[in-house]
Amino acid sequence: MTYTVGHFLIDELSKAGVDKTFGVPGDFNLTFLDTITEHPDMEWIGNTNELNASYAADGYARVNGIGALVTTFGVGELSTMNGIAGAYAERVPVVAITGAPTTNVENQKKYVHHTLGEGRYDDFRKMFKPITCAQAYITQVNAQEEIPRVIQLAMREKRPVHIHLPIDVAAMPLTPANHQVSLIEADHSDALDKMVQSVQERLNQAKQPVIIAGHEINSFRAHEALQTFSEEKHIPAVQLSLGKSAFAETHENYIGMYAGAVSEERVKNYVDGSDLVLNIGAKLTDSATSGFSYGFNEADMIVINHRLFDDHENAMEGIPLLESLNALNQQIDFRNEASFETYRPAGRIEASDKELTQNNYFNLMNQFLRPGDVILAEQGTSFFGGYTMKLPANSQFIGQPLWGSIGYTLGALLGTQLADKNRRNILLIGDGSVQLTVQSLSTMIRENIKPIIFCINNDGYTVERMIHGEDASYNTIKMWHYRDLPRVFGAEDEVVTHFVETEQQLVDAFSQITNQPDKMHFIEVMMRVLDAPDNLKEVSKAFAAQNE
Amino acid sequence: MTYTVGHFLIDELSKAGVDKTFGVPGDFNLTFLDTITEHPDMEWIGNTNELNASYAADGYARVNGIGALVTTFGVGELSTMNGIAGAYAERVPVVAITGAPTTNVENQKKYVHHTLGEGRYDDFRKMFKPITCAQAYITQVNAQEEIPRVIQLAMREKRPVHIHLPIDVAAMPLTPANHQVSLIEADHSDALDKMVQSVQERLNQAKQPVIIAGHEINSFRAHEALQTFSEEKHIPAVQLSLGKSAFAETHENYIGMYAGAVSEERVKNYVDGSDLVLNIGAKLTDSATSGFSYGFNEADMIVINHRLFDDHENAMEGIPLLESLNALNQQIDFRNEASFETYRPAGRIEASDKELTQNNYFNLMNQFLRPGDVILAEQGTSFFGGYTMKLPANSQFIGQPLWGSIGYTLGALLGTQLADKNRRNILLIGDGSVQLTVQSLSTMIRENIKPIIFCINNDGYTVERMIHGEDASYNTIKMWHYRDLPRVFGAEDEVVTHFVETEQQLVDAFSQITNQPDKMHFIEVMMRVLDAPDNLKEVSKAFAAQNE
Repeated sequence: MTYTVGHFLIDELSKAGVDKTFGVPGDFNLTFLDTITEHPDMEWIGNTNELNASYAADGYARVNGIGALVTTFGVGELSTMNGIAGAYAERVPVVAITGAPTTNVENQKKYVHHTLGEGRYDDFRKMFKPITCAQAYITQVNAQEEIPRVIQLAMREKRPVHIHLPIDVAAMPLTPANHQVSLIEADHSDALDKMVQSVQERLNQAKQPVIIAGHEINSFRAHEALQTFSEEKHIPAVQLSLGKSAFAETHENYIGMYAGAVSEERVKNYVDGSDLVLNIGAKLTDSATSGFSYGFNEADMIVINHRLFDDHENAMEGIPLLESLNALNQQIDFRNEASFETYRPAGRIEASDKELTQNNYFNLMNQFLRPGDVILAEQGTSFFGGYTMKLPANSQFIGQPLWGSIGYTLGALLGTQLADKNRRNILLIGDGSVQLTVQSLSTMIRENIKPIIFCINNDGYTVERMIHGEDASYNTIKMWHYRDLPRVFGAEDEVVTHFVETEQQLVDAFSQITNQPDKMHFIEVMMRVLDAPDNLKEVSKAFAAQNE
Repeated sequence: MTYTVGHFLIDELSKAGVDKTFGVPGDFNLTFLDTITEHPDMEWIGNTNELNASYAADGYARVNGIGALVTTFGVGELSTMNGIAGAYAERVPVVAITGAPTTNVENQKKYVHHTLGEGRYDDFRKMFKPITCAQAYITQVNAQEEIPRVIQLAMREKRPVHIHLPIDVAAMPLTPANHQVSLIEADHSDALDKMVQSVQERLNQAKQPVIIAGHEINSFRAHEALQTFSEEKHIPAVQLSLGKSAFAETHENYIGMYAGAVSEERVKNYVDGSDLVLNIGAKLTDSATSGFSYGFNEADMIVINHRLFDDHENAMEGIPLLESLNALNQQIDFRNEASFETYRPAGRIEASDKELTQNNYFNLMNQFLRPGDVILAEQGTSFFGGYTMKLPANSQFIGQPLWGSIGYTLGALLGTQLADKNRRNILLIGDGSVQLTVQSLSTMIRENIKPIIFCINNDGYTVERMIHGEDASYNTIKMWHYRDLPRVFGAEDEVVTHFVETEQQLVDAFSQITNQPDKMHFIEVMMRVLDAPDNLKEVSKAFAAQNE
């Protein structure tokens, strides 16, 4: 068999840690899909549509470290743009590959299907520029430089990249070279010295320092470095909802979730009363801070983000997050003396026969979580309720609170579960969101995976109702028979469905789920239409005001 | 009530002929949706996701003449890009409106949800440039210029436009001005003279002229002008599959569908033997010509397209299609003497108890069509089988053969049927395509419309199997219980489902459908996995060769 550009691309993805590629077939990628399906180290996961495939690749990357996606030119790649932009916003490395018309067809400017019919072939790859950190147009000559370059950039920046792969090029022979492509990272030592000096000086004066840990810690897998910093300097940490999982919630230095004005009183007082806020890999977005309602002084915050250091005297771009953390760990000499209170969640509650409310739903759900779980929470009541739960050790919490594309988590679940079939995956989602990406469920059934899906049925877009239009017709949706979805999508007894209206029924469902770990579970959970977690109500007011 | 920019936008859409706006709510458009739902002349059609909404707006525009779409910033608008690009490629005027963060939020570069979190707010509207013919960023000051400008450009070019509407601007007061915005069309009289002279000279020498009528005739509603030209000069016409409906198939000057080498022998001989091919509003794409397999000499073709005239001596950009046709009708002096054979479809066939094949399916389906029907055919076996049917008078055939986005027609059907509830809408689609956009069915049920949906169940992507990977795992899909879909999406007795395996069962279903015109009908049609219309098999071979 001739070794081709296509083989090389798959080998490079495999070396980077990808063992499953998501996507949808189209005639400009079919022969490349042969190469994928025949490759011993790569599996093809066919999706029902491209947006769902892009969400799955994102979910896979969040658990696995990097993901890949193959679609066809035009129709396919444009359908992924929302998903790829989400990966860009939230720093998830996804390699988005477009199988494209041949170089010959392009050079002749032919009017072929899946083009705009104008003989232009560069529009779509240009459209990827704002939402990817690198792009490559692959040729036989540049393949061995460009493919490693963009994959490494995806890993280095934790952002998506785009590969335009003419389908003839994919089949061209290639002789692997001996040399390796290695990106050269600039020398940041001067900037690091400045940064360390600034942090040291500010810490020396600090009476009540605090760490805000954010989503970049998850993207860059910087948990250990951050925890070391917190431990050795004895500085307590809070998390934002954008980045939950960044700091172990079982750690004694963890004091709780920070969400601006709607934070738990104890956490709010500590952070807002802090005279030095170390923002490490965090973004103070509107949704994470309940409409920028933080009470501390921005001048008291030092931003240590990937490629951004800002102490309000100097702002420097360039230093990678892990280099910053390593330098802080190695060079800072400080021991915090301020006392703080370790996070203690509310005690266990007992289920009654009362109807479920959003509040007791998440309290009970918290008791269902186990170490190692992957929990996905859709950007609606599920996310706002879900982020208040205390995470067990080694669990991972996945949402999309910055980009906030509704329907994301159902698509992502396919990827998170396929990234590690041995971890228990729990999805918390609502009816309005399920309707956007429902066909992903069919792919989960087809792939024979066993996630647990809790779908709140509360008759519409509750998150929108909270912001504006509580009773508006545009916030209503068609009432579906949600628990019948698995069967219509071809499930037989591999999916167990549950219907839950009361606290006790929810707890009973937990038991049944635990007793049947070899099944997928789909739980339809009835709730009142205007019931919402309190923090969501507050954020929604802030969003409404922001739109005026 | 204060008259606002939002009211003005809706009034302008209404004046252009839009009475229903499609979309999905999001917090950056909610207050504008209030304005829509409260407007006496505008109806809001809430969709399950944005891609489906964009397809619906496109379908609505193809029947109604112009359509509109409202989504939210980032997550919403990016999900429509495939749909908007399709409207661009196939010349369908859709006004795509993005409800965006306030000017204040943008100016402060805030990190708000639905952004990339970088403080940039212009990425997405720039991404619309290659797939729209005009863009506008609305302010209180420019609203009365910019809104009419882009709506008129959409109508003039029959292509989508993008409107970026900060949600604070939508609510700003506006005093309607007295003057009207009118686009100034350049004077094309010199170009028209040249064109007429060229066509006259070529016709004078022509022994066997023929018209190829294409999709632009449908977009520009130029049927009457074209038919007049054909009648007065006695020049016969063929259609391409890209543009079926451009010429009345009941007209005596109509000789048949032209598809290059796979055309009916009689049609192929006439067109390929022609010494003057008048390409009027047509694009000779790979799929329309079975891989560019036309037998006539390109030098014998004159291209008369919207803003493109090309007689192989001069190419001129600028003249609108209707101006060209009017000039030809008024100034050309010619009467074709060559004889030709009017199109005569095959005779009626009788249904037997045999299992359905793709061939007899479309033959029988042709007998089901009635004058005035809107027929949608999905880009797969349904389109290739469907375009060979003889259309009754005043019917409209809708496919997407240039852009070719799978799943398009199910989304579009919502729009075509809502554009005129009194016309019978018939969708021909397959299982693989239904899976991409299935939730559109739920919106049809919700809107209480009564289309007729034939869904071929042949276990996978047959159109892809024909091109490459006949037995490949990536061309298989999960087997769904298709005929149970309406019920799971909330239908009760307003949808009748049918299951058809034989010719006789199909004909029986036709009778039941005809007897219950006040119901939606969903017909699951079983067919063999590798059965495909002959023309599709030939096109597929050409596509496979093109990809080498």
